[in-house]
Amino acid sequence: MGKVVTFGEIMLRLATPHKQRVAQTSSFDAHYGGSEANVAVALAGYGFDVSYVSRVPDNALGKAVDMELRKYGVNTRDLVFGGDRLGIYFLEPGVGCRPSQVIYDRDASAFATLEQGQIDWDKAFDGAEWFHFTGISPAVSEEACATTFEAVKAAKERGLKISMDLNYRAKLWNWGKSAEEIMPQLVEYCDVVLGNEEHVRTILGVEVDRQEGETQQEYYKNICDAMAKRFPANKQIVLTIRRGDSASHNYVSGVLWDEGTYVVAPEYSVSDIVDRVGGGDSTMGGLIAGLIKFDDPQKAINFAVASGALKHTVHGDFNIATFEEVEGLMNGQNPGRVSR
Amino acid sequence: MGKVVTFGEIMLRLATPHKQRVAQTSSFDAHYGGSEANVAVALAGYGFDVSYVSRVPDNALGKAVDMELRKYGVNTRDLVFGGDRLGIYFLEPGVGCRPSQVIYDRDASAFATLEQGQIDWDKAFDGAEWFHFTGISPAVSEEACATTFEAVKAAKERGLKISMDLNYRAKLWNWGKSAEEIMPQLVEYCDVVLGNEEHVRTILGVEVDRQEGETQQEYYKNICDAMAKRFPANKQIVLTIRRGDSASHNYVSGVLWDEGTYVVAPEYSVSDIVDRVGGGDSTMGGLIAGLIKFDDPQKAINFAVASGALKHTVHGDFNIATFEEVEGLMNGQNPGRVSR
Amino acid sequence: MGKVVTFGEIMLRLATPHKQRVAQTSSFDAHYGGSEANVAVALAGYGFDVSYVSRVPDNALGKAVDMELRKYGVNTRDLVFGGDRLGIYFLEPGVGCRPSQVIYDRDASAFATLEQGQIDWDKAFDGAEWFHFTGISPAVSEEACATTFEAVKAAKERGLKISMDLNYRAKLWNWGKSAEEIMPQLVEYCDVVLGNEEHVRTILGVEVDRQEGETQQEYYKNICDAMAKRFPANKQIVLTIRRGDSASHNYVSGVLWDEGTYVVAPEYSVSDIVDRVGGGDSTMGGLIAGLIKFDDPQKAINFAVASGALKHTVHGDFNIATFEEVEGLMNGQNPGRVSR
Amino acid sequence: MGKVVTFGEIMLRLATPHKQRVAQTSSFDAHYGGSEANVAVALAGYGFDVSYVSRVPDNALGKAVDMELRKYGVNTRDLVFGGDRLGIYFLEPGVGCRPSQVIYDRDASAFATLEQGQIDWDKAFDGAEWFHFTGISPAVSEEACATTFEAVKAAKERGLKISMDLNYRAKLWNWGKSAEEIMPQLVEYCDVVLGNEEHVRTILGVEVDRQEGETQQEYYKNICDAMAKRFPANKQIVLTIRRGDSASHNYVSGVLWDEGTYVVAPEYSVSDIVDRVGGGDSTMGGLIAGLIKFDDPQKAINFAVASGALKHTVHGDFNIATFEEVEGLMNGQNPGRVSR
Amino acid sequence: MGKVVTFGEIMLRLATPHKQRVAQTSSFDAHYGGSEANVAVALAGYGFDVSYVSRVPDNALGKAVDMELRKYGVNTRDLVFGGDRLGIYFLEPGVGCRPSQVIYDRDASAFATLEQGQIDWDKAFDGAEWFHFTGISPAVSEEACATTFEAVKAAKERGLKISMDLNYRAKLWNWGKSAEEIMPQLVEYCDVVLGNEEHVRTILGVEVDRQEGETQQEYYKNICDAMAKRFPANKQIVLTIRRGDSASHNYVSGVLWDEGTYVVAPEYSVSDIVDRVGGGDSTMGGLIAGLIKFDDPQKAINFAVASGALKHTVHGDFNIATFEEVEGLMNGQNPGRVSR
Amino acid sequence: MGKVVTFGEIMLRLATPHKQRVAQTSSFDAHYGGSEANVAVALAGYGFDVSYVSRVPDNALGKAVDMELRKYGVNTRDLVFGGDRLGIYFLEPGVGCRPSQVIYDRDASAFATLEQGQIDWDKAFDGAEWFHFTGISPAVSEEACATTFEAVKAAKERGLKISMDLNYRAKLWNWGKSAEEIMPQLVEYCDVVLGNEEHVRTILGVEVDRQEGETQQEYYKNICDAMAKRFPANKQIVLTIRRGDSASHNYVSGVLWDEGTYVVAPEYSVSDIVDRVGGGDSTMGGLIAGLIKFDDPQKAINFAVASGALKHTVHGDFNIATFEEVEGLMNGQNPGRVSR
Repeated sequence: MGKVVTFGEIMLRLATPHKQRVAQTSSFDAHYGGSEANVAVALAGYGFDVSYVSRVPDNALGKAVDMELRKYGVNTRDLVFGGDRLGIYFLEPGVGCRPSQVIYDRDASAFATLEQGQIDWDKAFDGAEWFHFTGISPAVSEEACATTFEAVKAAKERGLKISMDLNYRAKLWNWGKSAEEIMPQLVEYCDVVLGNEEHVRTILGVEVDRQEGETQQEYYKNICDAMAKRFPANKQIVLTIRRGDSASHNYVSGVLWDEGTYVVAPEYSVSDIVDRVGGGDSTMGGLIAGLIKFDDPQKAINFAVASGALKHTVHGDFNIATFEEVEGLMNGQNPGRVSR
Repeated sequence: MGKVVTFGEIMLRLATPHKQRVAQTSSFDAHYGGSEANVAVALAGYGFDVSYVSRVPDNALGKAVDMELRKYGVNTRDLVFGGDRLGIYFLEPGVGCRPSQVIYDRDASAFATLEQGQIDWDKAFDGAEWFHFTGISPAVSEEACATTFEAVKAAKERGLKISMDLNYRAKLWNWGKSAEEIMPQLVEYCDVVLGNEEHVRTILGVEVDRQEGETQQEYYKNICDAMAKRFPANKQIVLTIRRGDSASHNYVSGVLWDEGTYVVAPEYSVSDIVDRVGGGDSTMGGLIAGLIKFDDPQKAINFAVASGALKHTVHGDFNIATFEEVEGLMNGQNPGRVSR
Repeated sequence: MGKVVTFGEIMLRLATPHKQRVAQTSSFDAHYGGSEANVAVALAGYGFDVSYVSRVPDNALGKAVDMELRKYGVNTRDLVFGGDRLGIYFLEPGVGCRPSQVIYDRDASAFATLEQGQIDWDKAFDGAEWFHFTGISPAVSEEACATTFEAVKAAKERGLKISMDLNYRAKLWNWGKSAEEIMPQLVEYCDVVLGNEEHVRTILGVEVDRQEGETQQEYYKNICDAMAKRFPANKQIVLTIRRGDSASHNYVSGVLWDEGTYVVAPEYSVSDIVDRVGGGDSTMGGLIAGLIKFDDPQKAINFAVASGALKHTVHGDFNIATFEEVEGLMNGQNPGRVSR
Repeated sequence: MGKVVTFGEIMLRLATPHKQRVAQTSSFDAHYGGSEANVAVALAGYGFDVSYVSRVPDNALGKAVDMELRKYGVNTRDLVFGGDRLGIYFLEPGVGCRPSQVIYDRDASAFATLEQGQIDWDKAFDGAEWFHFTGISPAVSEEACATTFEAVKAAKERGLKISMDLNYRAKLWNWGKSAEEIMPQLVEYCDVVLGNEEHVRTILGVEVDRQEGETQQEYYKNICDAMAKRFPANKQIVLTIRRGDSASHNYVSGVLWDEGTYVVAPEYSVSDIVDRVGGGDSTMGGLIAGLIKFDDPQKAINFAVASGALKHTVHGDFNIATFEEVEGLMNGQNPGRVSR
Repeated sequence: MGKVVTFGEIMLRLATPHKQRVAQTSSFDAHYGGSEANVAVALAGYGFDVSYVSRVPDNALGKAVDMELRKYGVNTRDLVFGGDRLGIYFLEPGVGCRPSQVIYDRDASAFATLEQGQIDWDKAFDGAEWFHFTGISPAVSEEACATTFEAVKAAKERGLKISMDLNYRAKLWNWGKSAEEIMPQLVEYCDVVLGNEEHVRTILGVEVDRQEGETQQEYYKNICDAMAKRFPANKQIVLTIRRGDSASHNYVSGVLWDEGTYVVAPEYSVSDIVDRVGGGDSTMGGLIAGLIKFDDPQKAINFAVASGALKHTVHGDFNIATFEEVEGLMNGQNPGRVSR
Repeated sequence: MGKVVTFGEIMLRLATPHKQRVAQTSSFDAHYGGSEANVAVALAGYGFDVSYVSRVPDNALGKAVDMELRKYGVNTRDLVFGGDRLGIYFLEPGVGCRPSQVIYDRDASAFATLEQGQIDWDKAFDGAEWFHFTGISPAVSEEACATTFEAVKAAKERGLKISMDLNYRAKLWNWGKSAEEIMPQLVEYCDVVLGNEEHVRTILGVEVDRQEGETQQEYYKNICDAMAKRFPANKQIVLTIRRGDSASHNYVSGVLWDEGTYVVAPEYSVSDIVDRVGGGDSTMGGLIAGLIKFDDPQKAINFAVASGALKHTVHGDFNIATFEEVEGLMNGQNPGRVSR
């Protein structure tokens, strides 16, 4: 299998430690993360050759991003240095009945000011077979949107498989155009699309009447069918499912429509959540890995959901896990036993 | 709305960090707290003009108390400096099947040696509309008991609304008189009283036979009716309810009798408890806020209980939260979602 | 009651803090522990005169072992200093759906190279009434196995009561002989044996056909009967039970066969697990304490299981608890209440 | 004495802990600070009525700024909430032969986008006698520069005493005009000016030929005389002196020209530096305090320099110290003795 | 050599971590210490059989004292449990030009309320050859003073060698009698006395005119001679010397008058001070060790001063060091080399 | 310039934090380091293409080594996974008058059991121009010694430049042969040798009579001349110099003999030492960089010594620094100034 290339923004994440509120803290835990970098790290952990393309400032923080990605096995040869600042987000992690809160401080970042032509896609896609991006990049700024289209088109021209995580963030879309206008254009290029039911409906406009007596699974299958009809390029469609009413305990699952075959993953109870940010990205990384490694849609979606579930036990945006660990969870190994 | 004034003892709380036992620890987490200060902080967080009256020593610790209260928006103009020491309590927080343990070291504190006349109630109550105190103050020492009566009478004379949290602590009453002797006299002055069923029964002597087949809610209503009859000044009576058999997971609720109207709050499951000390005080703060802000007993008690529940997610005695956050929880916002 | 003597290996345990993965950590929490030392500490906490016999290197780490044991009230007079290194194990504690992982680094330790004759059993057993060891010691090395037999025989000669925790660790048995060969020989010397159903079956070869419709308790009783028949010296046999599918939440229980009487402990839900390593050792310590203090098999097994459950709330290998705390849990005191 | 008002930008300072490099750290220590806020905190600690005027975003970070200032006794009634982000600076504290490094990330901050008219100077200066600002504010942005002039003129109109710390930061001046153009205009309004020799020379253009054989003190006196001639409004001029070639050990001093009287402070050796950021601001705060409290230029400059020296022992931008502590240092109390 | 017994108060020391000021800290580092316990720990580290007599409360803190002392090899068999609270002192460690500050909170402690007869001196002195106490105990309370006399007389009766560290603390003497009245009576019982020149002069009234041209060493010799004349029981007199004007760097030395022989220790530069509290106690412990182990006054005083110097590198009150480490320092081993 | 390849053992370093003694600590700071890996990291920081060859176990610790090296820019393609354990060393960092102490626990490590033929030198040296090793590798075990010779010969055959740091560690040489026997054989292969005067004399037997009146520099020049005569292959010889009598403050310098030219570096005062382990390795890395980048022996040795000095300010074995930072120090930039 050739290289997977992911593209997007990576930020410094500053989180209050030990469940403190911002008003109380005298320090912030520092991690680096962003949806597409998180996918890259997950894939590197699962043994893939993966490269990450982005732009970070040429200062100690930009260099730390490079170091952290290299540490986790991601190729950073195509990371571009430039711009004024690294995007930041502050995180106050929730617990129990208190929700997590995020303060974005990412305007005018190195990535948001990235211009077309600054990335050498020929070099970046050399040896690549898969390109992954998300709906965050076009939301960040007009320049980032234009570069996203540039990337997607370059990938298409070279015949790469293309995957997208919708990852709709309402607050980010304020540079002039709307998600409803841009996102469907991007989805049209994609082989693989991952999203949740709400975003498919509101952003992509793929709405299906839910029939009385219909199970959620039947309803989700109908959405996938409608998606596939609306976006004929889409060969694999994943809808992720998360429910639960506590910041410390959720249930996660997902469904996969694979060229007409429809499979449903088991639901994982994720309790005692250490860090839920990046859970969806780990699902996405698991999906790419699962689709490549298994010739079996059921195993692919199971691996994806288990990958997402396992992320909730790891601090930071990145899922630090091996293929074998996810397989263990997917195959029902009891986490209540000490592995010694 | 005019100022709310609270009066009582504030202590240095020294808690073992990270669920350590006292024998293991090489440090103690430091917070400042006391039932009435906790109510003041909750009210300040909810946007009220609130002032705290107490006595602390004129050393670095007393000054830290002043600083910490000012930080959280409490007016400390009437904090008196004097005495020899700040009361201390050591806390070994429980987890799972291990209960929390408290060691009091509060004898001869600046508050316990506070004498009548040391506080200028004219100044303290200037612009005030509400006075809050608890059953802890009269328990601390003979002097503190006398000053509590002094305060309550001064408040009454000025026509302030008076609220009391019974907060019965058996171990503290050892200066000569009993809670059963003193507490009913104080309750007689109060417009608003909060307590639990056990304390109403044992300390105030308000006992009601529970009928066979009677629900808990009917039984609690009967207690409130009996309270109102025994203490005609009481216009609002709250009984708080806590159940559960783990130090990390409780269920909390409460009922409000408001001049004859009886309403019951929904029960909140508080899991993954970060810190349960101060939960009752946050309920009390929420009750005062709810009674003032809402013209609706149901909303008032719901806000009070949600305020108490949310406290369990915050380190320290203080509930650091906004009115909007408590409203969110009260209105069913899903804490399982990241607010970004 | 005379002294209890325990014998085995103690190691430096290096655990990633705050649920970090090894790849993330920049420090390791340090504790000292080993199955038999853990039993000794539990017994010291319950008020017993207990002595620990082992071999540690004559360097700062060996001295730290001595200090830590003395701190928790264990007599270390018979701790022998010598050898090249202290055994180490690295622990990555699990959480939620991620299992705990252990990396052993104990080869060629001071204990593994302990030779017969290096311990003065006359001195070690002076004043002793009970000797406890586990199935780990004979697994460590040929020398340690020989010294274990030396110890058991010396105890038998002096008429001490002998207890053994099977504690089968498959990965350790690689010095030439198998557990199946050695362990039954050691069990033959024992008055008290603790293990789980799987180890009794696979290592001791005590297999009982499970009948259709038979309850687990009936099945476990049959195993105990078969054990007692196969090993006539065994007067008390305990089978421990642990179930659950999360690293943060288990259910623990156990059964005791006491010279023909068969009793079953209630099941404890251990949620919000702080540290599960040493849980079985604390059960063993509680069993010895329970058998000595109570003249009642039901109380003995209840105390043992409560002791094991409580351990899950304490960091490190050691259970730091008093007899009264375990009794409180065993008698149904509500851990949801603050003890003040 | 009436109120002192200071005006400028306050930022979140994120510093690597324990002398770590940025590449190594997994957390940042969080403090809030800015030159003028630091002066305000120093003055509050010395018992002055002081108010701080600035603009911070209406989010958890802006609120934390408010809390932190209130905690240290600064009046924040005139803190304006608005704008998109709080300015940030990253600090890698130096040690020994490694210099401290700062990464500014303050573009487009709430302060930088502050517009004329957003601050109600009538309200802000009500009851005030002294206004303090620095050369950082006009450097930040065109808007901030305009508002600085607005503030200075408003203060002049109301007859306030005006002080300025030159605080020249070359990297900040990039919005169009130069420091050489703007700064002299601001200095013309000032009663009190503090700076170092280099900045007086290069930015204000006050250059004096150094004569052969002239001592540093004679040379500095000549500079002051030239300053006074060039800027007739200046009644007190301070030149600060810092020397040393290690990040952990410096020597600090200063001279004061007070309406013709010229005095030199003793030099303090500041070793084992905990945090040198804010040292100059603490000197400035000490100068204002010294000029007001002492009718003696020598005592004023001695207090100022001692105040600056003491700051090096305190983490964060703020000097947390009392008037008595600075006096102790100024009067030669031995810091080698434990005060008990 | 027989057992050394020390007697006095041990407290919980709560120190701000990482050079923070009390106003900044959110935790306190916890150590247990007291002058006489510190001497005991030093002696245990040097290989002596040493026992500590005191009174601590029967709660988790009192038990932690017991544990900590046992850990460091001190016999606690004669530690009495009782009373209401453990004495506390808060420490804000100084650095550079900021002095350390202590807040005592030790009134009404278990030790201060210790009454005559509560300690069984027959048992405590069984097998003992040396008794050590300090001038702190008689200062604490009338009861503690009486018990100190009880102890000293009991030691004298049994023929023990008696040593005293004057350790004059002006703030503690407020129970009615003065140090000047009590201390000389206690010194009369002593074989060995350690103090500094100021205390010998002001408290014991041993004043010697300093002659013009006299060296400090000649002057100190004259003081020793005068002491020996005034207190004929004194066989060894040590005057300790500390100078320096930074909280991080001191010079320490001392002189010993040994039955007429007068020797002067070299001066140690103690830089980069980690913790200076307990330095004098470690000197005292080193003195006892030196007098016993060496038949050479010069070596004895050198060992004492080196022991005191080394303490400055260790956190907490206790000097955790071996005889060999002190000898190394005393013999000029280069601490600039890594011992590997 | 082609790739630099370094070869040797890397260990887990476990150091007590915050100047604690081993007996006090409840955690160890974890770093990975070894002399040759440290050189590799220094060179990567200075912008070189550098590869590290070693053997680490195939477990989480071995993987962490790989990650950490990649993070700092070292190519780990030729890192071999295998063997049973990662070598460990415990470090108790010294301070002031207390020396640092090291406990080695490296027997039977993955490196010590590395056998000839396990490393593919053709692959490892592909594209390489320089090979660096130290005198530690042949000391570790017979197998490691044999593989070191294998490596040196392979490098020689391919015409690589070869450098060696003598790094004599007396305690390690216990597998049968002596350093005196092996080391000279290795030095014969080297173009560049770094060591100190003592090791050159005692291990290599290069002894020169020091003449009366001769300066240290003349003496050192004579040693270099004798070295060059005894080992004709040596083209550059460096003698490092370290002096000072405190664990927190040293003076470092060095001399370079470069094919007959003799130059002396200035002496750096390294105060407030953060971590001195790896200082020599950073000097070595700086030497390789200096010899390659500068065509000037004086600049080369100055860069080397500055590189070593700067390391003392960085936690861990690795020197995390850029070429520009070392140049700054070498060129006299004042570290007392904040770089902003």
